Amino acid sequence: MKLRRLEEKELVEAIRREFQEPKAGLALGIGDDAAVLRFQGKKLVITKDLLLEDVHFSTQYHPPRLLGRKSLNVNLSDLAAMGARPLYALLGLGLPSRTETRWIAKFFEGFKSASKNFGVGLIGGDTTRASKVTVSVTLLGEGKNVIKRNGAKPGHHLFVSGTLGEAREGLLLVKKKHNLGENKYVDRMLRAFLDPEAQVELGRDLARLKLASAMIDISDGLSVDLVRLGEESGYGAEIHMEMLPVSPELRALQRRAYDFALNGGEDYQLLFSVAPEKVKILSRLKKKHAVTCIGKIIQTKGFYVIDRHGRRQRLLPQAWQHF
Amino acid sequence: MKLRRLEEKELVEAIRREFQEPKAGLALGIGDDAAVLRFQGKKLVITKDLLLEDVHFSTQYHPPRLLGRKSLNVNLSDLAAMGARPLYALLGLGLPSRTETRWIAKFFEGFKSASKNFGVGLIGGDTTRASKVTVSVTLLGEGKNVIKRNGAKPGHHLFVSGTLGEAREGLLLVKKKHNLGENKYVDRMLRAFLDPEAQVELGRDLARLKLASAMIDISDGLSVDLVRLGEESGYGAEIHMEMLPVSPELRALQRRAYDFALNGGEDYQLLFSVAPEKVKILSRLKKKHAVTCIGKIIQTKGFYVIDRHGRRQRLLPQAWQHF
Repeated sequence: MKLRRLEEKELVEAIRREFQEPKAGLALGIGDDAAVLRFQGKKLVITKDLLLEDVHFSTQYHPPRLLGRKSLNVNLSDLAAMGARPLYALLGLGLPSRTETRWIAKFFEGFKSASKNFGVGLIGGDTTRASKVTVSVTLLGEGKNVIKRNGAKPGHHLFVSGTLGEAREGLLLVKKKHNLGENKYVDRMLRAFLDPEAQVELGRDLARLKLASAMIDISDGLSVDLVRLGEESGYGAEIHMEMLPVSPELRALQRRAYDFALNGGEDYQLLFSVAPEKVKILSRLKKKHAVTCIGKIIQTKGFYVIDRHGRRQRLLPQAWQHF
Repeated sequence: MKLRRLEEKELVEAIRREFQEPKAGLALGIGDDAAVLRFQGKKLVITKDLLLEDVHFSTQYHPPRLLGRKSLNVNLSDLAAMGARPLYALLGLGLPSRTETRWIAKFFEGFKSASKNFGVGLIGGDTTRASKVTVSVTLLGEGKNVIKRNGAKPGHHLFVSGTLGEAREGLLLVKKKHNLGENKYVDRMLRAFLDPEAQVELGRDLARLKLASAMIDISDGLSVDLVRLGEESGYGAEIHMEMLPVSPELRALQRRAYDFALNGGEDYQLLFSVAPEKVKILSRLKKKHAVTCIGKIIQTKGFYVIDRHGRRQRLLPQAWQHF
């Protein structure tokens, strides 16, 4: 598990080195949530994600309509983490010959409903046969004050949006054959996993008001993405375990709720840093968005978790294990 | 085989209908070689293609360096068909855990060499684990006079670039365990299949000089893509079998050379229509580019092939069968 993450990190580093030559018009290249181009005075923000059957989802339990929605939402989350406004999507879809027309129709229905939420237009793509369902989305947006991963400074407060850990519980529940509609608690967990919402409005508000010094989407897990944001900024961080936003519903269902919040992954929420003098302005956004302070950026390069007894321990980033 | 193509066509039509609402800034949406956005007065041309192991290639015989090159070149070919100038690429790469570091390094070496040929910058992407090698490239370019599929008029001459049918022969040869370096004939076929060149310069010259009324990349096979260009334009076409550009090398190796040229597929060449009054200007480009007249657009909506005895037969489009 850690190996895989490490491998991805090393791979991204190697690619970065290989393709490092500066390129006219490129404002931000490999290594953030999205790439940024300067095009005729505006910033064009582009991201792409692969969603693969039996790696990121299983057609056994993921309803096609929700998979269509999630395919767009995971990309919207990357744009949200830049504070960008989503505009256009391209969809590459590989389908096994066994796929039923009804499944495809439902997938597109979902993709369309998610795109309507944010006024995204599907402008192109590619369909092909595949041995497993293969979804590749490219999403384009625009932004003025794009928020990168690398602007956090010591003393900046760390915030996360929403509640954490529920997608991991949702995954456990679908694997145990639980279904939507059973009860409110289970539904909440299943929704978090099968049909996550992207924090597009929050991201845009933070960008518009220039409140966040750095931002990242924590879909790989808070612990992993906190280290990414810290390392890109050149500093460390410390967070408080009991400050993590964990819902009563998750606590009721899962003894390891806080562990899931820290390491669960698939939470399409935002982690961002805010300079102390701007925290007051942020609090005004709290009527509109759920955000929680979980710690701060520190001068030293280590990453620490303070448990509920006040003990400071090294954070061991653990990545989301898919299937 | 035909079923698959039909399915893709129906799928694209259904998607088009679903997402047909006009979207500000969109100049050309689903159904051409690439999408075109108006962004701050310029036209941004975007295309994406999925390349899947055991559908579009096999790691058994495709050297990783050439696969890296081809991954970019097939997308460059789509931009070439719009007459656009390629600028930036995003690469999504799914890799099985068995993949060796050396393989990955070679793949990137190839991708980089192809990107250098046309000054394309790799600006982002996504890496993930996968059960089979999954390559998803998004390519962005810009164009002034973008050439669509739907501008052909009756009487316009039809031209193709390069020579046709060799990639199909190349596929047969790799399946029979032939390797690069055996002899000049075999090499030419293997190169056509394993390491195709995109006709970026030709596409740009045709756009710059406004010579082509419609254009398409014929990677799915001349017969299939001719029908696409004709249908999008609202007319039919007739082509002459013996006018198809078939190399002496292919004729020497393959009795069915002309059939391969018509239906083989994987030829990353351009098919384009030219108004009669512009054919003379085109002939000036012939010093720089190999282009061959193969027929013309006709008023009636059918598609015909004239054989070497002068017999006119209905064209039966046959799609490229992968693996």
